[in-house]
Amino acid sequence: MSTEQRAILVIGIGAGDPEHLTLAAVKAISRADVFFIVGKGPGKSALTDLRHSMIEEHARAPYRVVEIDDPSRDRRPMDRSDYTAVVRDWHTRRADLFERLMRDEMTAGETGAFLVWGDPSLYDSTLAILADVESRGTVSAAIEVVPGISSVSSLCARHRIPLNQVGRPVHITPARRLPEVGQNDDGDIVVMLDGGESFTQVDGDDVWIYWGAYLGTPDELLVAGPLREVSGRISELRSAARARHGWIMDTYLLRMASPDPEQP
Amino acid sequence: MSTEQRAILVIGIGAGDPEHLTLAAVKAISRADVFFIVGKGPGKSALTDLRHSMIEEHARAPYRVVEIDDPSRDRRPMDRSDYTAVVRDWHTRRADLFERLMRDEMTAGETGAFLVWGDPSLYDSTLAILADVESRGTVSAAIEVVPGISSVSSLCARHRIPLNQVGRPVHITPARRLPEVGQNDDGDIVVMLDGGESFTQVDGDDVWIYWGAYLGTPDELLVAGPLREVSGRISELRSAARARHGWIMDTYLLRMASPDPEQP
Ligand SMILES: C[S@@+](CC[C@H](N)C(=O)[O-])C[C@H]1O[C@@H](n2cnc3c(N)ncnc32)[C@H](O)[C@@H]1O
Ligand SMILES: C[S@@+](CC[C@H](N)C(=O)[O-])C[C@H]1O[C@@H](n2cnc3c(N)ncnc32)[C@H](O)[C@@H]1O
Repeated sequence: MSTEQRAILVIGIGAGDPEHLTLAAVKAISRADVFFIVGKGPGKSALTDLRHSMIEEHARAPYRVVEIDDPSRDRRPMDRSDYTAVVRDWHTRRADLFERLMRDEMTAGETGAFLVWGDPSLYDSTLAILADVESRGTVSAAIEVVPGISSVSSLCARHRIPLNQVGRPVHITPARRLPEVGQNDDGDIVVMLDGGESFTQVDGDDVWIYWGAYLGTPDELLVAGPLREVSGRISELRSAARARHGWIMDTYLLRMASPDPEQP
Repeated sequence: MSTEQRAILVIGIGAGDPEHLTLAAVKAISRADVFFIVGKGPGKSALTDLRHSMIEEHARAPYRVVEIDDPSRDRRPMDRSDYTAVVRDWHTRRADLFERLMRDEMTAGETGAFLVWGDPSLYDSTLAILADVESRGTVSAAIEVVPGISSVSSLCARHRIPLNQVGRPVHITPARRLPEVGQNDDGDIVVMLDGGESFTQVDGDDVWIYWGAYLGTPDELLVAGPLREVSGRISELRSAARARHGWIMDTYLLRMASPDPEQP
């Protein structure tokens, strides 16, 4: 293998708390020649600010930062097949962008880095897009992934709760799939990517919610309790925060009371 | 609130790679007066060795280390209600142990630390047991949780794959619940705590497996491919490794081919 191959680091940076960076991530940041920062959607500046400060703190000069806008994505409400087509189109345009970055913004022998919010494996398209680029065969790179603390781990840590009940499964789902996912589930469900307030649609009997927004940041909000009792309060906090910040990112765990009488 | 309260840190240390420690975990380790290392089951020494080396590297003297054996647990095959009872009994005995540690091995005003494998939220009993101790009201402590990189995040990073397919849910389950969980699931399933080789029981049509053992350690093993094709090889690797080490810890993702023709 030529030593002149491109290297791409996909580095999980945690979901908001700068101290959630791992030692491996710090090392990886210090190895990069060029950082690609792809701006994205609402909350963009808060999300990119954290990346910039991590680069300033941990990168080793000389390094370059390439900041680009994300291809815009149609975010109107739509049904599932439209949704899939839209996501696919957006992926293609992102792959075009990544290909261009890798080809034109770095040279063979260099190391490029994407700083990915939370854990790169969880509801993030960076890895899928890099796989797309790879399959085109136009520019090749050795890809290394550094895992990160996800918003799910953060949520549980801040509430000091286990994600799963003893011996039982746990589901993680985008809000848009909650209605189906909730139906066959006797376990616990983590909901992400909630554009609305899907928890208000859940039949709240015997369900606890552990909710967190802006986790790990100075604006962090936490609420836990029986869904029926705290649902209204979460909605209020959520709208107020959204109005103040202009955007919100929140995650929550719905914990079903155990149907197994043996289980505490 | 009295400053003379006990403090307990529950620190996720990652699932094998010492560099998966976060900056927050390093800081937390440096704040502890006493470390509680509870030995547990097979692989015990490898698992406690990593903790000892992290303490040596990051703790600030003077500190104490209290190492105790875990209450033993009945590990014979059993049905679900027996299983629950056994787990419950074992929890009670662990709570007795934790209560004694917190009362007798540290004083008010001190900080004790549990170094938890992977992420404390995932199939680990430390948080539930501390909640039990708290509910007894005999010794109280302010508990702080530092999230860690789980074996699930490690698995995905090493295979360079997303955990979820675009817009779809993912399930995490102990192997003993795989038969039920697999039935109603069109998404992806992560299997943990597999005492046997549950993947051999899965109807392998259109299923890919991403398997990893001893992730993050020098003994790491990775296999990925169509379940039908690689299942035999995983079984062989697994038995050979188990024979050599005397124990094994492995995790795998079962990725169902998408039933949605729109989905790549
Ligand atoms: C595109 S996904 C990326 C998830 C990320 N890769 C991770 O590991 O957390 C964005 C979703 O993650 C969740 N999220 C990310 N950061 C968060 C934070 N700091 N607080 C609460 N939720 C967060 C929200 O559900 C949000 O809709
Ligand atoms: C008691 S659970 C603890 C999980 C841990 N809290 C975590 O976040 O990964 C133990 C299970 O985790 C998985 N596991 C933990 N460490 C692992 C590793 N280094 N490689 C593969 N699997 C691992 C295996 O499925 C094992 O049966």
